Amino acid sequence: MDYRIEKDTMGEVKVPADKLWGAQTERSRNNFKIGAPASMPIEIVYGFAYLKKAAAYSNHDLGVLSKEKRDLIAQVCDEILEGKHDDQFPLVVWQTGSGTQSNMNANEVIANRAHQLAGKVIGEGEKTIQPNDDVNKSQSSNDTFPTGMHIAAYKKVVENTIPAVTQLRDTLKKKSEAFKDVVKIGRTHLMDATPLTLGQEFSGYVSQLDHGLKALKNTLPHLSELALGGTAVGTGLNTPKGYSESVAGFIAEFTGLPFITAENKFEALAAHDAIVESHGALKQLAVSLNKIANDIRMMASGPRSGIGEIIIPANEPGSSIMPGKVNPTQCEALTMVCAQVIGNDVAISVAGTQGHYELNVFKPIMALNFLQSAQILGDACVSFDIHCASGIEPNHSKINELLNNSLMLVTALNTKIGYYKAAEIANTAHKNGTTLKEEAVNLGYVTSEEYDEWVKPEDMIGSLS
Amino acid sequence: MDYRIEKDTMGEVKVPADKLWGAQTERSRNNFKIGAPASMPIEIVYGFAYLKKAAAYSNHDLGVLSKEKRDLIAQVCDEILEGKHDDQFPLVVWQTGSGTQSNMNANEVIANRAHQLAGKVIGEGEKTIQPNDDVNKSQSSNDTFPTGMHIAAYKKVVENTIPAVTQLRDTLKKKSEAFKDVVKIGRTHLMDATPLTLGQEFSGYVSQLDHGLKALKNTLPHLSELALGGTAVGTGLNTPKGYSESVAGFIAEFTGLPFITAENKFEALAAHDAIVESHGALKQLAVSLNKIANDIRMMASGPRSGIGEIIIPANEPGSSIMPGKVNPTQCEALTMVCAQVIGNDVAISVAGTQGHYELNVFKPIMALNFLQSAQILGDACVSFDIHCASGIEPNHSKINELLNNSLMLVTALNTKIGYYKAAEIANTAHKNGTTLKEEAVNLGYVTSEEYDEWVKPEDMIGSLS
Amino acid sequence: MDYRIEKDTMGEVKVPADKLWGAQTERSRNNFKIGAPASMPIEIVYGFAYLKKAAAYSNHDLGVLSKEKRDLIAQVCDEILEGKHDDQFPLVVWQTGSGTQSNMNANEVIANRAHQLAGKVIGEGEKTIQPNDDVNKSQSSNDTFPTGMHIAAYKKVVENTIPAVTQLRDTLKKKSEAFKDVVKIGRTHLMDATPLTLGQEFSGYVSQLDHGLKALKNTLPHLSELALGGTAVGTGLNTPKGYSESVAGFIAEFTGLPFITAENKFEALAAHDAIVESHGALKQLAVSLNKIANDIRMMASGPRSGIGEIIIPANEPGSSIMPGKVNPTQCEALTMVCAQVIGNDVAISVAGTQGHYELNVFKPIMALNFLQSAQILGDACVSFDIHCASGIEPNHSKINELLNNSLMLVTALNTKIGYYKAAEIANTAHKNGTTLKEEAVNLGYVTSEEYDEWVKPEDMIGSLS
Amino acid sequence: MDYRIEKDTMGEVKVPADKLWGAQTERSRNNFKIGAPASMPIEIVYGFAYLKKAAAYSNHDLGVLSKEKRDLIAQVCDEILEGKHDDQFPLVVWQTGSGTQSNMNANEVIANRAHQLAGKVIGEGEKTIQPNDDVNKSQSSNDTFPTGMHIAAYKKVVENTIPAVTQLRDTLKKKSEAFKDVVKIGRTHLMDATPLTLGQEFSGYVSQLDHGLKALKNTLPHLSELALGGTAVGTGLNTPKGYSESVAGFIAEFTGLPFITAENKFEALAAHDAIVESHGALKQLAVSLNKIANDIRMMASGPRSGIGEIIIPANEPGSSIMPGKVNPTQCEALTMVCAQVIGNDVAISVAGTQGHYELNVFKPIMALNFLQSAQILGDACVSFDIHCASGIEPNHSKINELLNNSLMLVTALNTKIGYYKAAEIANTAHKNGTTLKEEAVNLGYVTSEEYDEWVKPEDMIGSLS
Repeated sequence: MDYRIEKDTMGEVKVPADKLWGAQTERSRNNFKIGAPASMPIEIVYGFAYLKKAAAYSNHDLGVLSKEKRDLIAQVCDEILEGKHDDQFPLVVWQTGSGTQSNMNANEVIANRAHQLAGKVIGEGEKTIQPNDDVNKSQSSNDTFPTGMHIAAYKKVVENTIPAVTQLRDTLKKKSEAFKDVVKIGRTHLMDATPLTLGQEFSGYVSQLDHGLKALKNTLPHLSELALGGTAVGTGLNTPKGYSESVAGFIAEFTGLPFITAENKFEALAAHDAIVESHGALKQLAVSLNKIANDIRMMASGPRSGIGEIIIPANEPGSSIMPGKVNPTQCEALTMVCAQVIGNDVAISVAGTQGHYELNVFKPIMALNFLQSAQILGDACVSFDIHCASGIEPNHSKINELLNNSLMLVTALNTKIGYYKAAEIANTAHKNGTTLKEEAVNLGYVTSEEYDEWVKPEDMIGSLS
Repeated sequence: MDYRIEKDTMGEVKVPADKLWGAQTERSRNNFKIGAPASMPIEIVYGFAYLKKAAAYSNHDLGVLSKEKRDLIAQVCDEILEGKHDDQFPLVVWQTGSGTQSNMNANEVIANRAHQLAGKVIGEGEKTIQPNDDVNKSQSSNDTFPTGMHIAAYKKVVENTIPAVTQLRDTLKKKSEAFKDVVKIGRTHLMDATPLTLGQEFSGYVSQLDHGLKALKNTLPHLSELALGGTAVGTGLNTPKGYSESVAGFIAEFTGLPFITAENKFEALAAHDAIVESHGALKQLAVSLNKIANDIRMMASGPRSGIGEIIIPANEPGSSIMPGKVNPTQCEALTMVCAQVIGNDVAISVAGTQGHYELNVFKPIMALNFLQSAQILGDACVSFDIHCASGIEPNHSKINELLNNSLMLVTALNTKIGYYKAAEIANTAHKNGTTLKEEAVNLGYVTSEEYDEWVKPEDMIGSLS
Repeated sequence: MDYRIEKDTMGEVKVPADKLWGAQTERSRNNFKIGAPASMPIEIVYGFAYLKKAAAYSNHDLGVLSKEKRDLIAQVCDEILEGKHDDQFPLVVWQTGSGTQSNMNANEVIANRAHQLAGKVIGEGEKTIQPNDDVNKSQSSNDTFPTGMHIAAYKKVVENTIPAVTQLRDTLKKKSEAFKDVVKIGRTHLMDATPLTLGQEFSGYVSQLDHGLKALKNTLPHLSELALGGTAVGTGLNTPKGYSESVAGFIAEFTGLPFITAENKFEALAAHDAIVESHGALKQLAVSLNKIANDIRMMASGPRSGIGEIIIPANEPGSSIMPGKVNPTQCEALTMVCAQVIGNDVAISVAGTQGHYELNVFKPIMALNFLQSAQILGDACVSFDIHCASGIEPNHSKINELLNNSLMLVTALNTKIGYYKAAEIANTAHKNGTTLKEEAVNLGYVTSEEYDEWVKPEDMIGSLS
Repeated sequence: MDYRIEKDTMGEVKVPADKLWGAQTERSRNNFKIGAPASMPIEIVYGFAYLKKAAAYSNHDLGVLSKEKRDLIAQVCDEILEGKHDDQFPLVVWQTGSGTQSNMNANEVIANRAHQLAGKVIGEGEKTIQPNDDVNKSQSSNDTFPTGMHIAAYKKVVENTIPAVTQLRDTLKKKSEAFKDVVKIGRTHLMDATPLTLGQEFSGYVSQLDHGLKALKNTLPHLSELALGGTAVGTGLNTPKGYSESVAGFIAEFTGLPFITAENKFEALAAHDAIVESHGALKQLAVSLNKIANDIRMMASGPRSGIGEIIIPANEPGSSIMPGKVNPTQCEALTMVCAQVIGNDVAISVAGTQGHYELNVFKPIMALNFLQSAQILGDACVSFDIHCASGIEPNHSKINELLNNSLMLVTALNTKIGYYKAAEIANTAHKNGTTLKEEAVNLGYVTSEEYDEWVKPEDMIGSLS
């Protein structure tokens, strides 16, 4: 392979000739062979592109960077954001905990690519743009990485997770309305209980997701706070006056999202509670979605020896050995995602506790787990929506069979004949394998007419939506 | 031991004669010998007392309970809230997952005690108040337990956790202001970094707790929603019209807290995402507090062979074998609490995922873990505040020694002579064990005067508070 | 309240006159008001009693403690182990992370009680036995607490958890044998699958618990290693020669359990991986038990609108509003316990990571969570065994109805007519709501006689037990 | 793009013409767009290759597959194991929870590639090998996926994790021996304590890893049990007699690892406790490694304002803004890995609890998390070993300075002059900022000569290694 020589404060390093990165990126590749290459999420790279461009703009506005350099840096950042340089970011997540080398990776790629854009050949002549002195001007790994992390996390949540959960929520809402007259047996402790409508059941799911979305949105202000401007320890050393606000403003402008500069930069470097907070809300959604998916697969179970109250779409042959079987595969994918998000929450919490003094050095793992959760939770909601929820239909005959067969309708008699007599009727029918009405009349507690008048499932579903 | 006979729908049960509880409580005692007795948190019992009283008031207002019965029920509830019957609630957390028997425990104790208040002898004559038909009127275990759980959780958070965290936050804020001029070495990656003030460091802690308190308060609206009125499956079967709103109103009145009826009762029975949500915020606070306590114990380490930048109060002899040693015991208690809260969060998340159909039957474990977290997190903050944070003082001599000895002041030269030359100075001083100034001048990059003018720690701390 | 004056190196402290503890215990009570009092598990106190007695014996044997003092100390320890002084240990778990004050609590109580046993009055005259110089001789908090923790944990596992899990395992084994001819529908993805016997299903549970018990027993050797003899930092400073082996021998003798001295005392003080390891096995059992309990409650669901393949004992009225309902309450208690154990595992793991230098200061929380898990997991298994598992019976009529109705018997034809034709039969029957046989013959793939000969559920259950 | 038509029981599907997969793989690609493509670990694909080849051999030996088909299947499997078809497995982890489509992906690729090897063109003519009837013969997704998972997990543990941890352990052992005479200050509660040697400190790390390796190896027997032969529900339906043992034998032969057939196939399909068990041991190692890495970075902290007792290799420039700084980056990468493993353990535990009836449908997530943990834990150990541990050297001057300055040497006087007087000396020196010797003599408790004779750090380190 062809190499060129790059250097940093430690000396010279051989770098593949066709790559834009420099010495520090190459060192990191060699020093951290942990897991698959390039595991640092590409969203973090894009976060860096936004912030490097914004920093160049602020540095220029504040008089410490020339217009030429600003524009070269911005041009490369735009190329990165167009996905043109995805393969120039080979580093792993399991690196320096401040993400220093990913910051340097960005600095080096931008500097070398700018050199090309300026018509030069990489490795020849003085660098048109210095990675440290120009691209990284008024910055430190310690404030850039958390800034990139917040940009990536915020974008993922508002562009992927929230729309996806909302899409599923809207489908469930429509189903809730469509099923509002489908009276069915209720179940508590997995046991037969008093009736409700299928629409009411689905309204609970909608309410869960509404609360979850609200909880997630509540966390966005914290996530909108950017560390940039704190530099190495939060004091903003080596930044021009007004820089923090300026650079947050440019990031907001470039992303179209309401980013602001963090009021307290010491927190912003040394703790990542905003990530903990937002992921807590993702975890809450996972808890909710797990409940919903479980219900749906239990209600869809069968086709003949399960509950079978609803029918879900058949998307693939269910089994390689058992013909005719359709499995709740979307529920399975979704609940696996939920379990992953719950696990990720622990990784994030543990990482979040371990900030020391002026820096938390578990940044990359927090970014990785957050972005995975936000991505797969959103994707799974869309997949579940399209391939399962949208197609759910009641199995009316099974619903009615289970409803009318139930002993729990006896509770309709509680207020008429009292708890103990009602229980006696149910117990007798249970023992004899008979119907409630039969035993209610036999025991002399009600007449046949009274039974029919008092025990109407459709009257037992209340007015609560 | 003396017994009396109590009965329920399954038949007769012998109950200790001096106890107020009845058949179902006694069955539960015998059927669930898991862990220590009476592990159901007393706060849940009090939650039941509030809601039973409120239900009696609503039932009376809505015409389904006599004034006499209402007042008897209310009187017993008030006694319970005064702590007079704490020993009448012997059940464990590890019982029916809906908390049915704890609901019955409340019903039975209230009924039997009301019988006494009515001048009767328990076990003799018809019960003045029926546990099921009167005390439990318009209710089910399925809506009472989550209501009691929300009452207990909300009260604990606003009466214990929030004031306690705020108290610590206020102390840290005062310290931040008091230490605003104490310039010290910063540390990133545990390594020496550019300086900041001790006040700035503490301001980061304040900011963490401010964000955490905000996050916790964001969860309160969800927690203020009460399930009561949903009865068995969420439909409100067997409740009088207007009951849900009425009973929530009385609970709000009796507790002085802004409880409302849950908009969707199906969610309120089948999922406890509000508990998941609020505990997520407690967990976030645990993450923050862990960072703060870790910093403080590291900064207080020594007395001679550690960091030693701050002095914390000596509250107890530090060791049974090593005289003269003072340990950061409050930090240790607090970080143990944080680890517990992180573990509890997992228990709550797992429990929260497992609602099935119309009911989540992991209610008691969710209540247990939530109340423990809210209690010990609050208590630990107060303890940490009183016995540690309030007494923190800078160790000025050690701070200055470490600051002035540091190589990292060299960064002040970055903008003067460039990154590479500054690095050379630092590297040379590091290699030779000399001072920065010595090498800076030797290398000919600055004059002695320039050094003194440019390298001033107090000029390196920025204007960020 | 009456007080007496006790003192330590920090000065005088007022202690309730009727209590045996001394100055340091009292300081700790005042300094750590976190959660309920006396939350330090009593098993840890007993662990201290064993080790203090053993230390006294070793110290005497090795010539550094008189016979009189040895016997006085041993006598008090025996009293403690008889439960006579349970109320003399008021400290909370959330204290110094080395458990120093619980060690001092033991030292102080033993010293003061020995003074009484010597015929003196506490607080009068020179102490017959010195808490530090005599009771704590050759010891430190840092090696005593982990020793007490291992004693308590080991005892709990072998005396409670293992017998309890084994009891449940044996019942499930008996059920597996009793149900070996009960052919039923299998279910995968919650959907109907090929048949198996109920006995085979239960054999899977037995196998899970067998593996879990084996895993738990695999962890015991690590847990049998005792820190005692390491004193403050693991070097054994201030211990007589041969002490470590001697004291472990006495502990083994007094407990009747195979304790040994830890080969490496530095690990034994600074890390508690043995607790992490054994709790990992408890967590594995929780995972297994959760699966088992879930299956049982799903199979018992109904009575009319669920699966209903098995009947579980009715131990209590199931609901305060719905008569005639019997809930799987033991499954609920057990699965709540499982969720708690999974949460506790995280608390223990987090605590386990945080040892620093020569000491892990998360000892009390590790002890608390371990002992709770071992206790409630064991208790819940016994409760589940007695009140549920032992009474499980097949509901033959429902089992047969679901089996014979199933479409999945078609797989018996796979090897006869090929996968695609078998699938066609099943799909057609599914669409038409007809039987497999009807469609198999209609489609001309088999004759009626062939069908009856080839499709026999009892031939589809294999020979795997 | 060019397509060809493939079909399954649900009908026709368009598949990219240049791909080897078939209809079901393509359906899964379209139905599960969750996260990045091809997230199913390649190790699982290789596990399938081993088992498909083994099944072909067993099927042939037992008379149900021709030699020609066996050899074609085996030839493709060998190609897969050589990595020639990695790009033919595009499916995601977040699919059907039984991994059905990954099983079909293997079946389809093998069948189509076999067709090519037989000299045919894919999509033309009858398939030489049928994916279901031939490649999947005597198999089901339900027993193949867990078999592939165990093969992949076992291989990863014994080929990656164990050698890697052992490599690090051996380095630490060498360091422990090399540092056996380096006396240093001990630290408990982060505070100065009695001395020990640096070698003793490292011996604790070795002991942790020894115990962890033993714990991990203890779990291998469970992991060596293979589900194959259970087919759909564990009964072994549609397998020839002797198949289970035969196929496990071939897998053992082909992998060179001691795989055996699971004694109980019902457990093997419905629960994955072996994965839970082995991952528990990985998590224990993570807990241990976290402690070790934390110690090392704290001891290496500085260069001037930290502890500075050891020197770790400088592998990269430490900061983009602060010259001359070397960070403990390998410690950071390793501790991030540890946090991830702790999070993964929760995901695996949650997934493990959720088996229902005859199948656990969280298989892919369990495989994903297990393989990631085993990989990154191993890789991080190697990285940490090469780039950090191997290069650790004591900083003798700093070690001696901190040791001799310490007050804790006073404990050497405990046995000479008693606890209280020793404490007085230490307290006085602490207050006055003086040396212990000075105050010891001033207070008249010892002579200068006695002090020198009694207080020798090298005599305080015991004989415990």
